[in-house]
Amino acid sequence: MGGIFGVVRKHDCVQDLFYGTDYLSHLGTKRGGLAVSGPSRFSWTIHKLESSYFRSKLEPNLPTLQGNIGIGAISDTDAQPLSFTSHLGRFCIASVAGVTNSEELTRKATAANCFFSGASDGKVRPTELIAMLLSAEKTFEDGIRSIHEKMKGSCTFLVMTPDGLYACRDKLGRTPLILGRKADGFAVSSESSAFQNLGYTYMRDLGPGEAVFISPDGCETRIAPGEVMQMCTFLWVYYGYPSSNYEGLNVEAVRYRCGACLAEGDNVTADIVGGIPDSGIGHAVGYAACKGLPYQRPIVKYTPTWPRSFTPQNQEARALVAKMKLIPNRALIEGKDIIFLDDSIVRGTQLRDNARILFDYGAKSVHMRIACPPLIYPCEFLNFSSSRAALELIGLKAILALEGVEGKNIERYADASDAKQAAMVEWICGKLGLTSLKFQKLDDLITAVGLPKEKLCTHCWDGSGWGHY
Amino acid sequence: MGGIFGVVRKHDCVQDLFYGTDYLSHLGTKRGGLAVSGPSRFSWTIHKLESSYFRSKLEPNLPTLQGNIGIGAISDTDAQPLSFTSHLGRFCIASVAGVTNSEELTRKATAANCFFSGASDGKVRPTELIAMLLSAEKTFEDGIRSIHEKMKGSCTFLVMTPDGLYACRDKLGRTPLILGRKADGFAVSSESSAFQNLGYTYMRDLGPGEAVFISPDGCETRIAPGEVMQMCTFLWVYYGYPSSNYEGLNVEAVRYRCGACLAEGDNVTADIVGGIPDSGIGHAVGYAACKGLPYQRPIVKYTPTWPRSFTPQNQEARALVAKMKLIPNRALIEGKDIIFLDDSIVRGTQLRDNARILFDYGAKSVHMRIACPPLIYPCEFLNFSSSRAALELIGLKAILALEGVEGKNIERYADASDAKQAAMVEWICGKLGLTSLKFQKLDDLITAVGLPKEKLCTHCWDGSGWGHY
Amino acid sequence: MGGIFGVVRKHDCVQDLFYGTDYLSHLGTKRGGLAVSGPSRFSWTIHKLESSYFRSKLEPNLPTLQGNIGIGAISDTDAQPLSFTSHLGRFCIASVAGVTNSEELTRKATAANCFFSGASDGKVRPTELIAMLLSAEKTFEDGIRSIHEKMKGSCTFLVMTPDGLYACRDKLGRTPLILGRKADGFAVSSESSAFQNLGYTYMRDLGPGEAVFISPDGCETRIAPGEVMQMCTFLWVYYGYPSSNYEGLNVEAVRYRCGACLAEGDNVTADIVGGIPDSGIGHAVGYAACKGLPYQRPIVKYTPTWPRSFTPQNQEARALVAKMKLIPNRALIEGKDIIFLDDSIVRGTQLRDNARILFDYGAKSVHMRIACPPLIYPCEFLNFSSSRAALELIGLKAILALEGVEGKNIERYADASDAKQAAMVEWICGKLGLTSLKFQKLDDLITAVGLPKEKLCTHCWDGSGWGHY
Amino acid sequence: MGGIFGVVRKHDCVQDLFYGTDYLSHLGTKRGGLAVSGPSRFSWTIHKLESSYFRSKLEPNLPTLQGNIGIGAISDTDAQPLSFTSHLGRFCIASVAGVTNSEELTRKATAANCFFSGASDGKVRPTELIAMLLSAEKTFEDGIRSIHEKMKGSCTFLVMTPDGLYACRDKLGRTPLILGRKADGFAVSSESSAFQNLGYTYMRDLGPGEAVFISPDGCETRIAPGEVMQMCTFLWVYYGYPSSNYEGLNVEAVRYRCGACLAEGDNVTADIVGGIPDSGIGHAVGYAACKGLPYQRPIVKYTPTWPRSFTPQNQEARALVAKMKLIPNRALIEGKDIIFLDDSIVRGTQLRDNARILFDYGAKSVHMRIACPPLIYPCEFLNFSSSRAALELIGLKAILALEGVEGKNIERYADASDAKQAAMVEWICGKLGLTSLKFQKLDDLITAVGLPKEKLCTHCWDGSGWGHY
Repeated sequence: MGGIFGVVRKHDCVQDLFYGTDYLSHLGTKRGGLAVSGPSRFSWTIHKLESSYFRSKLEPNLPTLQGNIGIGAISDTDAQPLSFTSHLGRFCIASVAGVTNSEELTRKATAANCFFSGASDGKVRPTELIAMLLSAEKTFEDGIRSIHEKMKGSCTFLVMTPDGLYACRDKLGRTPLILGRKADGFAVSSESSAFQNLGYTYMRDLGPGEAVFISPDGCETRIAPGEVMQMCTFLWVYYGYPSSNYEGLNVEAVRYRCGACLAEGDNVTADIVGGIPDSGIGHAVGYAACKGLPYQRPIVKYTPTWPRSFTPQNQEARALVAKMKLIPNRALIEGKDIIFLDDSIVRGTQLRDNARILFDYGAKSVHMRIACPPLIYPCEFLNFSSSRAALELIGLKAILALEGVEGKNIERYADASDAKQAAMVEWICGKLGLTSLKFQKLDDLITAVGLPKEKLCTHCWDGSGWGHY
Repeated sequence: MGGIFGVVRKHDCVQDLFYGTDYLSHLGTKRGGLAVSGPSRFSWTIHKLESSYFRSKLEPNLPTLQGNIGIGAISDTDAQPLSFTSHLGRFCIASVAGVTNSEELTRKATAANCFFSGASDGKVRPTELIAMLLSAEKTFEDGIRSIHEKMKGSCTFLVMTPDGLYACRDKLGRTPLILGRKADGFAVSSESSAFQNLGYTYMRDLGPGEAVFISPDGCETRIAPGEVMQMCTFLWVYYGYPSSNYEGLNVEAVRYRCGACLAEGDNVTADIVGGIPDSGIGHAVGYAACKGLPYQRPIVKYTPTWPRSFTPQNQEARALVAKMKLIPNRALIEGKDIIFLDDSIVRGTQLRDNARILFDYGAKSVHMRIACPPLIYPCEFLNFSSSRAALELIGLKAILALEGVEGKNIERYADASDAKQAAMVEWICGKLGLTSLKFQKLDDLITAVGLPKEKLCTHCWDGSGWGHY
Repeated sequence: MGGIFGVVRKHDCVQDLFYGTDYLSHLGTKRGGLAVSGPSRFSWTIHKLESSYFRSKLEPNLPTLQGNIGIGAISDTDAQPLSFTSHLGRFCIASVAGVTNSEELTRKATAANCFFSGASDGKVRPTELIAMLLSAEKTFEDGIRSIHEKMKGSCTFLVMTPDGLYACRDKLGRTPLILGRKADGFAVSSESSAFQNLGYTYMRDLGPGEAVFISPDGCETRIAPGEVMQMCTFLWVYYGYPSSNYEGLNVEAVRYRCGACLAEGDNVTADIVGGIPDSGIGHAVGYAACKGLPYQRPIVKYTPTWPRSFTPQNQEARALVAKMKLIPNRALIEGKDIIFLDDSIVRGTQLRDNARILFDYGAKSVHMRIACPPLIYPCEFLNFSSSRAALELIGLKAILALEGVEGKNIERYADASDAKQAAMVEWICGKLGLTSLKFQKLDDLITAVGLPKEKLCTHCWDGSGWGHY
Repeated sequence: MGGIFGVVRKHDCVQDLFYGTDYLSHLGTKRGGLAVSGPSRFSWTIHKLESSYFRSKLEPNLPTLQGNIGIGAISDTDAQPLSFTSHLGRFCIASVAGVTNSEELTRKATAANCFFSGASDGKVRPTELIAMLLSAEKTFEDGIRSIHEKMKGSCTFLVMTPDGLYACRDKLGRTPLILGRKADGFAVSSESSAFQNLGYTYMRDLGPGEAVFISPDGCETRIAPGEVMQMCTFLWVYYGYPSSNYEGLNVEAVRYRCGACLAEGDNVTADIVGGIPDSGIGHAVGYAACKGLPYQRPIVKYTPTWPRSFTPQNQEARALVAKMKLIPNRALIEGKDIIFLDDSIVRGTQLRDNARILFDYGAKSVHMRIACPPLIYPCEFLNFSSSRAALELIGLKAILALEGVEGKNIERYADASDAKQAAMVEWICGKLGLTSLKFQKLDDLITAVGLPKEKLCTHCWDGSGWGHY
C-alpha cells in the first residue's frame, strides 16, 4: 500500500510534515522519506524502515530540512520522495501507486531516448514513470492527464514544485487523498487521521482523478474529478486507521458495522468475543456489542516493542515476529468458547498458528468470523505485499483442492449463496483447525461500508472492477 | 518500576534471555541490558532506551554474548546488569529496587573503606549497594539476609554467578518474581507473560523474601519465604501486562473485575464505554460488559510509532508525546455520552487534556471512572517515576485547596464513606472539566484483585504498609 | 578532483573494489560509493564522507554487495556511482568530471522531454548528463563520442553494464585512467598506486579520449586514443599519490626533481629543509638531497586522527583543522634558518599562519620554496574545490594591488623573466610574512615532470590550454 | 601503553580536554573517554576505538559534558575514566598503568570485604585497584603513597575531584606526566605535544613519584618527587610523538641522533635511505643526514584512511592492515641499494614481509638498521600489547634456535661486543631475508637520548631495572 502526505504553509512546514507522514506509518514498512522546498533548493531525506521506524530514523535529519512546502511518503516499495529536473522546472514526487504496465511505459520512453535512474534490476519505479510522463507534456496538468490515460493499475501522487504542490488522486479513486486546512496553510493526506493532532480540519476528499494545486494562497482544482469511482474496499476492512474517514465514512464505524453484520443471524454461542490484534479488534467490538456478549482480550499484542510497522520482508522473520508479538492470556482462554474476529484470510498460516495456540491454552471452541468474503481474485490494481500473490491465497488453494484445476468455477466460489462457496469455507475451516468459520457476505460488507457498490472496488471477492479502463 | 529476567539452561541462553527481557519493556524506559556467563568470562551489553527501544538497541550486540546463564534488566533508573568481583568470586546483579536509606548505607560502607563506582552525583545506585551488602558477608545467603534486614524500601534482585543464579524476591514481596521451566532449563521473571512464547511453563511465584538458587541441574530454595506480604496492588491496576498472573491472579481478569465493580451500582447512562489507551482498556472492557453497554474505541493510540516504552524523561516532551500518540475518532465521539475508564489519576494533566479534546470533538458528556481510589499517600517503597512526587498528586492538591493546609485530615480523605472524600472528588472533577467522576472504593479494588487485604500494599490510598519494617 | 576505480573479474570483485576505491580517498572528501553487477541486479551503496571516512562508512554495507563487475567513486561533489535504465539497458556510471556547459546541455535535453533526477537546486550533476548523452545515441560507443564532442570541461568515466565495463578517459586526457590486470581479471583506476597491494600489475595508461571495454574475457579498445593531450600538471605537483605513475612518470620522483630544480641555483643558506605536510614533503626531500642540507620534520601532521581526507567543507572548520592537525616541533625550529617547501600557494592564508607559527616557535628565518609557478589563471577544466575561485587566488590579488585593475598585464605576471612577476612574488612574500619566497619556473616544472609541454595543461600558470576544443 | 590528559580551568574545559586527549590517540587503540566535573555532578563518556577513532566517536557526546575540571584517557586496555564514591567523596580516575601484582592486591582487598566492578573475567582493572587503594587511606595523599608502595609494575594517574585534580606520576617515572599552563588554567599530559595547539606552555615534567594537586587557583606539589628514576627509553624510540619532549629531550631530535649514531661507522653504501612509516622515519632522516645520502620515501603509508590508531586487536586483521596501509613506490626501489631504518624488531613478521616486498619491487639490496638493540627481556613494568609476549620476541627465538634451550646465555646475547649477539643478529638477518642488519648499541642509544643510564629503564635490552622495588 503506502501513504503520502503534503503540506503547504506560509511558514516552515517541517514539523507538520514530519508528524503527518509519521501518522501514515501503518501503511508501509520499507522506506520513508521527506522532501521540502526551501528558498532556493529542495532538500530531502529517505531512510530504510526495516530495522527501525520512521520517527527514529528521520528525526536526526530534520535540522537539514527547511521550507514552507513539503511532501512525505511511507512506502512499501521504493525510496521516496524523489527530485527531478525537466523542462517543467524542478519538482519532487511522492506516490501511492501500483503500475501494471511499467514495462510497456519504460520501453516506449527509452525508445524515445529517455533514461531512468536507480533501478537495480532495470524495473523502473513508479515515481520515475510519473516523472517521465509529466516531462513528456507541456504542462503539469497535461502530464497528469497523460498519467491517468497511460498508466494502468492505480496512481495517487503529489508533485512538489517551488511554488506549491499538485495533489492528484488516482483516476478511479482507488486510493484516497484528503484535503485539510489550518490558519496558515493546507495539508493533503492518505489518511484524515493524520490531520487532527496537527490542527488541520478536514475540508474534503478529492474526487477520482481530481488534481488540486495548492499554494500558500489557496487550493485550486486544476483537473475536475471524474464520475466513475472504484475505491478499494480494503482500506476500511484492513488498511485504514480507525480514526480515519474516507468519503465521509469512518473506518472504525465501518468495522463496527462489519462485526455487527456478522453477529446478526450468527447463531453460535460463546463466552467471549475477541479480535486478532490489531486487524480484528474493530470488527470484534461491533460483533460483541451486537451479539450482547462481552468483548475481551484473550490475545494481546506486545506493543511496547513490536509496533505494527515492523513487518520484516522475509518469511521466516515474519513468522517469528507473528509469534512473538502476540501474547495469549490463559486466564481468558482456558475452558472458554471464544468467537474471534479478523479482517480477512490471505494465506491463513498465521491464523492456523493462532488457532492451534488457542486450543493449546485450553479453549473449548474457536469460532472465527471474517469481516469480508473469501479472497479469490488477486488484486491487479494496487501494490499489495507479495504475500497476496495469486498462488498463495488460501481461497485459490481451496478451489484447486476441490476442483482439481486452478480457478475452475471461480464465479460460483465467489457467490455466497452457492454450495461451492460453502464447501470452500468448510475446507478452509478444516485446514485452519477451527471449530467454525464464517465469512462476511459481500452485500453485507457493502452495506457496512455505506457506499453504493458501483463506487467500490470489490475485485478481490467478485472479480469485478476491470471494465473501467 | 523496572523488570528483571533470568535464564539458566544446559545450552546457550542468549535468545531466551533477549526475548524474555524484551517482554519486560513496558516496565521501564531508561536503560536496558543483558549479562551472560560464558565458559571463562562474563559478557554484557547495556543501552539507553530513550531514543530507541530495547530490541533495536540490543540486537546488534547479541553476537558478543555467549553462555548458558544470563540475566537481563529493563530499568527506569540506572544502567544494569552490573558485574562485580569480591571474596564471593565474580557475580552480576540486576534489580528492581527502591532504596530509601541509600545515603545511610553508603555512609556506613565508605566509613569502612568501601568504594562505589559510577555515581555521577555521589548517590550510589541500588545495584552497587546490593553488591556491597553481599560482599560484606561470608556467603551469598548471609548477604541476601543482610539486604532484607538493612535495606529500606524494596529490593527484588538476581545474582548471576559462574555456576547459576540467585533469584531473590523482596522481603515483603512488594514486587513479583516468578519461576518457569522448560525441558533444559529454568527462567525467572518479573512477569509471567514473558514465559509463554519462549516455551517456559509457569512453576510458581517466589514467596516474600524467598531466595532460590537456580543451576542447570535444578532449583533450590536457599532462604524460605516469610509470612508477611505487602505486594504492590498497582501491578494489577496499571503496571502489569494483561497476560501476566501474580500470585495466580490474572492482570486482565483483575482489570475486568475492576471495571465490573465500578459499573455495578453506577447509575450513569451513556452511549458507549471506552478506555484511555492503554491503561484504561482492560477496565473499560469489564465495565462495558457488566453494564451491558457497547465497548468502543473513541480514542486510539498510534502504536505503529509510539510504543508505550517511549515515555521521554522531560515534561515538555512527555506532553507532546501524550498528545501525539492518541488520535480521537470524531465519528465515535460527536454527540455521544461517553463513559471513560482509566487506571488512576496521578497529576491529572493528561486526563484534563483528554477531557477537553473529547468535548472539542463533540462529546455530550464525559464520565470518568477510575479503577482505584484517589492517590494521596506518595509511595515510599518502590521507585516510581518522579511524576508521582508528593506535591504533584492531584489528591494532595485537592486537600490543600479544601483545607488550606497540606495533608490536613488526610485519613478522612482516604475514606470513601466520608464527605471529605466526596468533596475532594468533586473538586478534582471540576479541575479536570469532567461531566462526572467516580473512583473505585478500596474494598472493591481489593475484592477485584482477590487477595486478602493484609497481603496487599494499599499505602497509596490509605497510608498503611509501614508497620512491616 | 575525485577518483574512480573499476574491476572486472571472473570471481566476486567486492573486496578488490572496496580496497581499490579506498586507495583513492585522498582525491575527494564529500561522497564515496560502490556499485556491483550481480547475477540479476545491480546493488550499490553511497555515503557521505564528511564526518567519517570511506572505509568506516562502507565496510558495514559490503555484505549487501555481490558480483564480479564493479565500479567505485570518491567524489568531491555528487553522490556516485548512479544506476540508470535506458534503451541501452541497465548501466551504472562513476565519473571524474568538471562540466562547464551543463546548463546548456540540460536545456537542450529537457527541451526534448528528458528529465533528470536528484538535483536539489535544479543543477544537473555530471553523472546524469553522461547518462543522458549516452542514452541519446544508438550504442555506448556513439554515446561516448557524443560526450567527447558536446561536453565542455573534462570527463573521465566508467560505465558498468551487466556484461562488463567501459573505461573512458577524458578527450584530452586531462585526468588519468590506468589499466591493471591480475590472473582472473582487470582493474582500472585513477591512480596506479591502488593496484599494487591488490595484486594487479600495471598494463598501460589509457590514451586521451580512449574507450576500452573490459569483460571477464579481456580488454578491447572501442574508441582509439586521440593525438592531442592536455594532462593536468597538478596531478604530479599536488593531487597524485607518491607511489603512483602517470604516463609512466612517478609522482614522488617528479616531486623530488621539482625540489631539486628549486635547489639548483638557489643561493639561500639554512640549517634544515622541511616540507609542509603532506603536500610539500616530496618536494622538500628532493630539495634537501640536491642542496646537501639535512631534511628534517619541524612540523608533523597528527595523522592518527586527522587523515588527509577530513577536509571539512566550511571555511571556519577548515581553518580549525588546518591549525589542529599540524604540530610544530620547537626543538627543530628554535634558532634555526629553515627552508620550507610546499606544492603551491592558492589563497595563502594557511601558509601565512604557518609562517607566523614558525617565527613564534623561534625560527630565525623562513625561506619558502614553491614547487610550481604562481597560480593566476583559474582552472576552467576540472572540478577543483571552491577555494580556487578566481578572486581568492593570491596571485590575482597581487596583480590587483599592484596594477589597481583586475588582471591587468596578466601575461607579464605569468612570465618568470618579467619584472612584473618579481614584483608580484615580493608582494606575496610580504603578505605572508616570509623571509624569502621563490616559485618554480614553468620550464623547470615541465622538465621535472618529463613530458613535452604540449602534452601538459599548464593553464593555471600561463593561461594556455584553450585552443584544444 | 595509553595516555592521559587533564585540564583545570576557570572556565569550561571541554574543548581543551577533547582536543588534548585526542592528541594522545597514537598511544592506544582500544578505549577512549572523557570525564568532567560540573556544578553538582560528574559526567563522562567512553567509547570503543576499534572501529572508528576518538574524535569521531566522542564528538557527538561533547554537548553532554560541562564543567571546568576534566580528565581524559586513551587506553590500550580498559574503559576509562571511571567514577567512584568513597569516604574521600566523589572522584574520577584515569591511568597509564601496568600492574603485575593485581591478583595479590585484589585478594587482600576482597578479604576485607571490598568489591570491584566490571571485571568480566574476575581480573580487576588498574583503575579500580587505584580507587581501592585510595579509599583505604584517610587522605588522597596517603592513598597515593600507598599506591607507590603496594602496586608493582608502573602507575601514572590522574584523580579528578570536585575541587581539582591530582596528577600523579609513577613512583619511578617509568611513564611521563607533564605540566602546562595558560592564562586561566593548567593542563597535565602524557605528551607535551598535546599542549601546543591548545595554547598551553610547558611548565615542567613531574618528577618520579611526584603528586601535584591542581585547582583553578594554582598547582601545589603534595608529594615531592623521588630521587630514583627508571624512565622507559622506548618512549623516545617508538611511542612518543615527534614534537614531544620528555625530561626536556625532544623525541624527533633523539631519533635523529639515533639514526646518526647508526650511520657513524656504518660502512655500507647505498643509493637512498628510507624509513618504515611511521616508526622508522625520524631515525632515517638522521641517518641520511649524517651519512650524506638522500632521504627518500620508497614506502608511503596511506594515511588518508589508515591512521595509526587503527591497529586492530586480532592478528589476522593486523596483518591485513599492515599490508594494505603501506604502498611501495617501484620508481624509488627498482635497481636500488636501500638502507631502511626502523625503531625496533619485535616479532619480525611485518619486517620480513616488507623486505620480501622490497625485493619483489626490484631492490638490489635491503640494509636494515634498527634504532635500538635486540629486544630479549620482555617488559615487566608497562602494559605493552600482547604481541610483545615473551615467546614471540624474535630475539628469544634466535636464542632458542642457537642454544637449543630457552633463554640460555641471555646476558651474552645482550652484550653487543659478544660473539653470541653477532650470531643472533646474523640469524635474524637470515630469517627476515635482509641483505644486512645492524642494531644500535645500548651505549649509543643512551647517548642519543641524552640522560644518564641510571635514569633510564633499559630492561628490554639488558634485563636491568628490577632492583628499584
